[in-house]
Amino acid sequence: MDSLPQSLDASVGTPISTQLGEFATSLRWEEIPADVVAQAKRHMLDALGIALAASGFDFARRTALAIGGLAGQGTHPVVGLPMRLPLRDAVLVNGSFIHGLDYDDTHSDSVVHASASAVPTALHMAREHGASGAEAVLAYILGIEASARIGAAAQSLFHQVGFHPTGMVGTFGCALTAGRLAGATAAQIAAAQGILLSTAAGSLEFLEDGSWTKRLHPGFAGANAITAVALGRGGFKAPPAAYEGRFGLFRMHLQEKTPGDLSRCTDALGELWEMRNNALKPYPACHFNHAFADAALALRAAHGLRPEEVKRVTARIHPRQVKVVCEPEASKRRPANSYDAQFSVHYAIASCLLHGRFTLDELEEDRIRDPRALALCDRTGYELDETLNFPRYYGGELAIETMDGRTLTHREPMNRGSDGNPLSSADVERKFTDNARRVFSADRAQRVLELVMGLDSAPDTVALTEALNG
Amino acid sequence: MDSLPQSLDASVGTPISTQLGEFATSLRWEEIPADVVAQAKRHMLDALGIALAASGFDFARRTALAIGGLAGQGTHPVVGLPMRLPLRDAVLVNGSFIHGLDYDDTHSDSVVHASASAVPTALHMAREHGASGAEAVLAYILGIEASARIGAAAQSLFHQVGFHPTGMVGTFGCALTAGRLAGATAAQIAAAQGILLSTAAGSLEFLEDGSWTKRLHPGFAGANAITAVALGRGGFKAPPAAYEGRFGLFRMHLQEKTPGDLSRCTDALGELWEMRNNALKPYPACHFNHAFADAALALRAAHGLRPEEVKRVTARIHPRQVKVVCEPEASKRRPANSYDAQFSVHYAIASCLLHGRFTLDELEEDRIRDPRALALCDRTGYELDETLNFPRYYGGELAIETMDGRTLTHREPMNRGSDGNPLSSADVERKFTDNARRVFSADRAQRVLELVMGLDSAPDTVALTEALNG
Repeated sequence: MDSLPQSLDASVGTPISTQLGEFATSLRWEEIPADVVAQAKRHMLDALGIALAASGFDFARRTALAIGGLAGQGTHPVVGLPMRLPLRDAVLVNGSFIHGLDYDDTHSDSVVHASASAVPTALHMAREHGASGAEAVLAYILGIEASARIGAAAQSLFHQVGFHPTGMVGTFGCALTAGRLAGATAAQIAAAQGILLSTAAGSLEFLEDGSWTKRLHPGFAGANAITAVALGRGGFKAPPAAYEGRFGLFRMHLQEKTPGDLSRCTDALGELWEMRNNALKPYPACHFNHAFADAALALRAAHGLRPEEVKRVTARIHPRQVKVVCEPEASKRRPANSYDAQFSVHYAIASCLLHGRFTLDELEEDRIRDPRALALCDRTGYELDETLNFPRYYGGELAIETMDGRTLTHREPMNRGSDGNPLSSADVERKFTDNARRVFSADRAQRVLELVMGLDSAPDTVALTEALNG
Repeated sequence: MDSLPQSLDASVGTPISTQLGEFATSLRWEEIPADVVAQAKRHMLDALGIALAASGFDFARRTALAIGGLAGQGTHPVVGLPMRLPLRDAVLVNGSFIHGLDYDDTHSDSVVHASASAVPTALHMAREHGASGAEAVLAYILGIEASARIGAAAQSLFHQVGFHPTGMVGTFGCALTAGRLAGATAAQIAAAQGILLSTAAGSLEFLEDGSWTKRLHPGFAGANAITAVALGRGGFKAPPAAYEGRFGLFRMHLQEKTPGDLSRCTDALGELWEMRNNALKPYPACHFNHAFADAALALRAAHGLRPEEVKRVTARIHPRQVKVVCEPEASKRRPANSYDAQFSVHYAIASCLLHGRFTLDELEEDRIRDPRALALCDRTGYELDETLNFPRYYGGELAIETMDGRTLTHREPMNRGSDGNPLSSADVERKFTDNARRVFSADRAQRVLELVMGLDSAPDTVALTEALNG
């Protein structure tokens, strides 16, 4: 062994992995506030709607078929496709469906998309172990609470050095989810976290060319957590200092940048609920566009505005958002593909004015090429507005001049989906239905919705996972 | 996304992943020199003997039972145990058996133990796809050639920042092994490497407390490579710059320490054979003890030396090895457990003088506590010898004063197993037999030996993998 880093944490107090293991085994249903349970179910519904929508996409079918060819038949249903896979492979595939459209939830401080790993891990581990629906919801919440805290302790530094925290951090949350549902002890769940230190991974290299690897990260995170819990339950010896150790998660990946204080990993467990800081995306697009989509919809609704009445549109936006969604303006007005369309404020506004919505349908080829949308893009420009409270919120203001000489304005100071402007239950249900209806009948979509909303009183997760199968 | 590293490789020439993919698909059996094939089979035999021995250890049984309980019955035999697992789980378990005793081979420049992942990946993927024994040997060699080069390009820096390269690097070699046997194209094998950039992992935290996580690294490496190859064959889009990219393997894990030149990854593929720089361990102990064990055996054999004739033993050792295997001398003379015994030059010498060998048997509790061995430890000391060619070789000299007043000396300038002093075929076969006989009869051990030695003319790997099953 060559020379090794000298720095070594003085081991003080109970290891973080043990504290999280104890939280996972001791949390009782009655201790979770009703609003947290309600929000958890909304997030599970949202994730499953996205997974249903994703199941129709090329990446999802290729993933499912490749894994199915390798793993063979199992008992766990794939979302939206007529396939069943072994437990861990179902988690891998269904996790990739939830995260694959960049439409799933985001915990604010950590920038971790933890539902994509925690939802399939909770549903399929509960099914495997015959746990109740309430236990599945509780275990899902455990995953969010742990992943959000660990991710927040990293202070966005994982991104800066090239690691994608969604899977790398999410896998530790899933150790709590899977451990709870497997009936593991606190020590066994701690051991699982020590084992996951040897599998936690995820590169941002996909940013260079839009390749699909990011989409696999949450599924690998969940599947590895299930393996680690099985080993932990079997008495496998693992290092206790999974987070704070000399070669723990933070030191190893952040090196000199490692934060000095990791107390955020376990701060106020069971008292403050990070689930409340988990935001849903109202639109399948860059967060910076959401305020403008809402402003366009508001003006359209308030004034019965038709596209042909629009003379000129001005988006007032914070200067630090401009490079991402406004420039170069010529290409923002002619998105070449769905990915470009997700990063064009012009297209988001045009789509909302034209169709009264911005869903995955509006990212289809024919919508992106629609001359009526492109004509609206041509009439759209932007102005800088430094009074917007960026980056706390991604707000914006829209001014529309009409053909008959009126100027209509609407300001959205806080993007919807953020903690200052959360989605309503009706918003979430509408998003779910839009997504689910891409592959399911209205009746089937409604049945899934009812099963998720009643999950905390269901005897198991069998009915729900079956209802999701294609 | 927060601020990201600015540095970005100019993309020049064919990506490394593509070059490796092309090597994997184009290499023909006739192009591999006969000595490389012969060495490959010796290393496969060595790895499988260690796996057989390991199958009797507690860690191995716990691993196999935990994974078996999770995965259920499959068709791929576990080495040494009466169990069968699905393909990837068999690779995970058998890989952990090969690496779990710290007795497997080491590629010198890279300090990577690549056989532990490449051997089970080759044997089980060949079985899964009905490939011939020669194809399995070829695919195993591909894994070594790639892992050794990628590991060597890192210049031992992975260790320095806390990553264990055996699995992290080995997984890329296994992409070639698995890809070749699955009949993947060069582009698909390149895609598999891009996918593995999102799973490559492995922490050195086990060093802190001797926990077992290291043992899992090669198995996860092989299993993930099989998944990645399946996805690559299915058309999954992955980043091409798995190694040289802005968030590729080196930049992401080594950050500021990243070497400027990655050409070593593909240097002289098919011309120079890294298999030749892959060393076998003659003894289940720290490399620093090997010359002293050999010197003790040589003196014992040359002079018919019996333990009671030994008055005083002096080990002449290079000063930079002293801290690891000589000091603190009181505890080196009384190893508390098998791990301590592996790092005591006193115990290695005592064991060879007493039993005429140093195998896994000599790490058993009763041998470590044997008063005759401890009496020899008490009569053993060391002197510094700066003339030894450290670190090129781990040499040593032994001087033994006998009760009747003779002084017998023997010098081993190059540790056996190194390129300057390789193990003979007879040495390898004896080590295999010692290991295999811990769990198999002489007949069964001999049958495995013959099947490995005839593997390049076998129609498949079925007979061998069946013969290994417990």
